[in-house]
Amino acid sequence: MAPGNSENNPMFKRMALIGIGLIGSSISHAARRAGLVSEIVCSSLTAEERERAEKLGLATKAYPDPIDAVKGADIVILCTPVGAFQEIAEAIGPHLERGAIVSDVGSVKGAAVRDIAPHIPDGVHFIAGHPIAGTEQSGPDAGFAELFDGRWCILTPGPDADPKALAKLEEFWRQLGSNVELMTPEHHDLVLAITSHVPHLIAYNIVNTAAHLERVTDSEVIKFSAAGFRDFTRIAASDPVMWRDVFLNNKEAVLEMLGRFSEDLVALQRAIRFGDGSTLERTFADARAIRRGIIQAGQDTAQPDFGRGAARARKGSD
Amino acid sequence: MAPGNSENNPMFKRMALIGIGLIGSSISHAARRAGLVSEIVCSSLTAEERERAEKLGLATKAYPDPIDAVKGADIVILCTPVGAFQEIAEAIGPHLERGAIVSDVGSVKGAAVRDIAPHIPDGVHFIAGHPIAGTEQSGPDAGFAELFDGRWCILTPGPDADPKALAKLEEFWRQLGSNVELMTPEHHDLVLAITSHVPHLIAYNIVNTAAHLERVTDSEVIKFSAAGFRDFTRIAASDPVMWRDVFLNNKEAVLEMLGRFSEDLVALQRAIRFGDGSTLERTFADARAIRRGIIQAGQDTAQPDFGRGAARARKGSD
Repeated sequence: MAPGNSENNPMFKRMALIGIGLIGSSISHAARRAGLVSEIVCSSLTAEERERAEKLGLATKAYPDPIDAVKGADIVILCTPVGAFQEIAEAIGPHLERGAIVSDVGSVKGAAVRDIAPHIPDGVHFIAGHPIAGTEQSGPDAGFAELFDGRWCILTPGPDADPKALAKLEEFWRQLGSNVELMTPEHHDLVLAITSHVPHLIAYNIVNTAAHLERVTDSEVIKFSAAGFRDFTRIAASDPVMWRDVFLNNKEAVLEMLGRFSEDLVALQRAIRFGDGSTLERTFADARAIRRGIIQAGQDTAQPDFGRGAARARKGSD
Repeated sequence: MAPGNSENNPMFKRMALIGIGLIGSSISHAARRAGLVSEIVCSSLTAEERERAEKLGLATKAYPDPIDAVKGADIVILCTPVGAFQEIAEAIGPHLERGAIVSDVGSVKGAAVRDIAPHIPDGVHFIAGHPIAGTEQSGPDAGFAELFDGRWCILTPGPDADPKALAKLEEFWRQLGSNVELMTPEHHDLVLAITSHVPHLIAYNIVNTAAHLERVTDSEVIKFSAAGFRDFTRIAASDPVMWRDVFLNNKEAVLEMLGRFSEDLVALQRAIRFGDGSTLERTFADARAIRRGIIQAGQDTAQPDFGRGAARARKGSD
């Protein structure tokens, strides 16, 4: 049996989740599923989330103040939007338990290290992290134990990270269901700019463009969205504050990738303008290879239309 | 009982599907489900597709030449890429049955009318159409009877279209499961430019951008695609020839909508560059309303992550 996956021998005695939205609540579900921790507490700024967290059994106690959550905790995970990290780290720093592991789940790792590391006292192990998983839903009710299964969690340990603490955090994420990859914060931020941040920006942008046309009504956009547009609206329904903070904190990498995207788009635009069908067809055909790779790597479903029509199709094939 | 939905009283005696890919094969499935036609035949350029069409029971006979398919047919539907319409219409024109209805399923209606209408003889009723439904898969094996259920089919009859033929074609699409909307070809092409054509172009483009970065590997793009990118790869796996023809044939509307998209994207890019968090947050929050509208209109699933994780989530909630 893998270490720490029994309730008699948990990896941690007290886990503090600072913020209990989609990711925080999913960590709670997955950690309880694997028996990784004896006790889970959390903190949230809103009374409503604290009530839901306790009612759903995500935490035995949900505190308004993160300082109360981290007292006695041997693992602390920041699960708030990135923009809140600096203030939280400064507040909890003096109250962290010696030997504790502190991590986070923020989508920007350069900013996480910048804002958290200076406030971590000696003898406490800070290793930034980012589980590559989510849905478009937010809040403590949105979480579920299987969110991380088969996905990747990226950890970005500094050069002087404690090897034992790192090994333990890696094992913790594996027990939550993830694969683990290590890289520098800078490389993480570049990779995520293209696999996450720019896709979200583009999705938000086209929804916004569609909503402000004079010659096409919102009602038409909605009715005829199954032609492709609706796919973009899913990630454009993600938490606005979380995403605001991502773009404010990963500016350089996002602007670099956005520059590439726009340059490539202009090339396709010219091909359309001048009727260059072979460039269009070649570009479109090439895109299929990446889709195949994603399905082969188990990072998306092979079912047509994301499996949306699966129930209908099964019924029809009888 | 609605007219024509019994096998004893079908709406049409012989339906000819010119092209038997995803849409053609789905029309066959749905028409048989509703008992709308006595006989279905089809044509396809490739021997492999003809064999599959007959083997799957999509057509009693699959011809290499569309002329053979349309003989004796009282409904003919062109289901090929838009770029093939002109040649097909010219070939079949002299062989169309008097009183027959001719339609199509092309994604561009101005071009469909331009390329088909001149070849339709007197006494044959041409009404262009476009079912707003599909998956990223192609070919005769990809079709299923439920594809059109609850979706919209847009018809773009000319000012002198025969009212009885139009009413019959509307009823045909309703029996296939669709809602029906009428509009001009020009307005259709503008609406679809934003709800379908530009989204596909953007999806193809970002997949292409991601595949040609120097500092991020294809393997990293694939592994970490669940952070948003994978959503775009689905529609970017659609048929390259079909989409080439869409962009070559809806140039003006696509370039107009692409101009709006790029203008809006530059505004978000500036907001990122200058740290304007309130513009970002407001834009992102506004996008949620359109998503809600799409779900309320029954045009997408309300399940998180398109229901991809539904099986996993159900298991976990026990």
